[in-house]
Amino acid sequence: MTTTRRTLLRGTAATAVTAVTAAGASPAGAVESGTPATRADSPLPPGPRIGILLYDGYSLLDPTGPAEVLSRLPGAEVVMIAERRGPVRTDTGDVRVMAERSIGEVDRLDVLLVPGAGNRGTVAAMGNQALLTWIRAVHRHSRWTTSVCTGSLILAAAGLLDGRRATTYWASAPYLESTFDVTYVPERYVRSGKIITAAGVSAGIDMSLYLASLIAGETTARAIQLAVEYDPRPPFDSGDAATADPRLKTLALQLLADSQI
Amino acid sequence: MTTTRRTLLRGTAATAVTAVTAAGASPAGAVESGTPATRADSPLPPGPRIGILLYDGYSLLDPTGPAEVLSRLPGAEVVMIAERRGPVRTDTGDVRVMAERSIGEVDRLDVLLVPGAGNRGTVAAMGNQALLTWIRAVHRHSRWTTSVCTGSLILAAAGLLDGRRATTYWASAPYLESTFDVTYVPERYVRSGKIITAAGVSAGIDMSLYLASLIAGETTARAIQLAVEYDPRPPFDSGDAATADPRLKTLALQLLADSQI
Repeated sequence: MTTTRRTLLRGTAATAVTAVTAAGASPAGAVESGTPATRADSPLPPGPRIGILLYDGYSLLDPTGPAEVLSRLPGAEVVMIAERRGPVRTDTGDVRVMAERSIGEVDRLDVLLVPGAGNRGTVAAMGNQALLTWIRAVHRHSRWTTSVCTGSLILAAAGLLDGRRATTYWASAPYLESTFDVTYVPERYVRSGKIITAAGVSAGIDMSLYLASLIAGETTARAIQLAVEYDPRPPFDSGDAATADPRLKTLALQLLADSQI
Repeated sequence: MTTTRRTLLRGTAATAVTAVTAAGASPAGAVESGTPATRADSPLPPGPRIGILLYDGYSLLDPTGPAEVLSRLPGAEVVMIAERRGPVRTDTGDVRVMAERSIGEVDRLDVLLVPGAGNRGTVAAMGNQALLTWIRAVHRHSRWTTSVCTGSLILAAAGLLDGRRATTYWASAPYLESTFDVTYVPERYVRSGKIITAAGVSAGIDMSLYLASLIAGETTARAIQLAVEYDPRPPFDSGDAATADPRLKTLALQLLADSQI
């Protein structure tokens, strides 16, 4: 199915569109798929193959925010991957996303993304040798190896962050620095060679827009930002741990712990 | 399973925590689940039951952003619902989230959330009388009825937005206003009575933090914002359609169309 879609997209030069149906003429402001006004003279190479590793206990937004953004790259294919095919539970146990491929079925990816999880899921993944071996093998040939939230601890457990600068979930930073040979950088995302780590949960969206610009250029990344209407206006300003009240930090961790199975 | 978790959470006064394990002592900065330092003297009522309607062709971040935020409300249960149980495809066809309940199995929700979709999915849902009837029935008893992106068109098709102010995906605003008796308001989210509509895709995160504050108070909402480290810092500033170049709008819609099946 995805192969078919990628095949259909070859020859589609989305960045060269000059005239399409006016916005707002249809419910979702759609333009007709597959019929851009301008086509490249020669077929474009297929878009990036993006693999997202799911494992029991991941946090839902970690894989899905980046999947939403990166799926809009021209010709992109997003594949959810897990140790075994089938539904994989989030940290709350309430939601399950399907892994469409097992790790045994995937050995080459343009982009690998490892999401974060609650304590239980992170610890289990850090100790899962099958996952770590697969991460190392895919990383060997990837164009980009990325993580969100405590996913960086899993990359570190796989040995990929030795000697590097990286970020992680704010509450995991002391653990990252004390356990691995990693310099924690409190930014939304940190690039070190072909590895990009993102801070907690929602930071994956910022990171994946940056990654989109590296893969397809700034204009395409900006268009994706507009496509997902990412003009964030949170009603509060309490998302930055560096300025948060200690009691709010405690409450945040308590809410997370209470919501997780 | 979710019932068990809710039961466990009764008596847990997450907002009254005064002392828990120091952050950073464990990989995910975890505190021990279910053992807050302070407990309410009497059991708390169970938290909100949040139902998210999936249908073929929804956009992945529309349901998952709010699910991530709202699942952290004390005692919350998040249920993915569709016409039939089982995996439901996103607009790209690449990703499937499981519907754990069918609409026939759910008649009462504290919060109903209707996500948006690409053109095909939106049009199909707007014409699906079984879905519209169910939305009307659940809305009758809901505490909050909400939408993200073109989900507001589906609420409108169900007759819930007559005479109201609402928002939607930027490219769908002309359609919303010309098709229904609705006043479009270009804000991230718009409350009209117990109905809250959010703008496109990522706006569901902002909306759900606002909703969290209505349900559990501002301190809890702020703690959830910190829990998901929502301190957005997109690398670009192009998410606002009101200031976007027309060519960027065209490219955004083209990327969406090309990525959708």
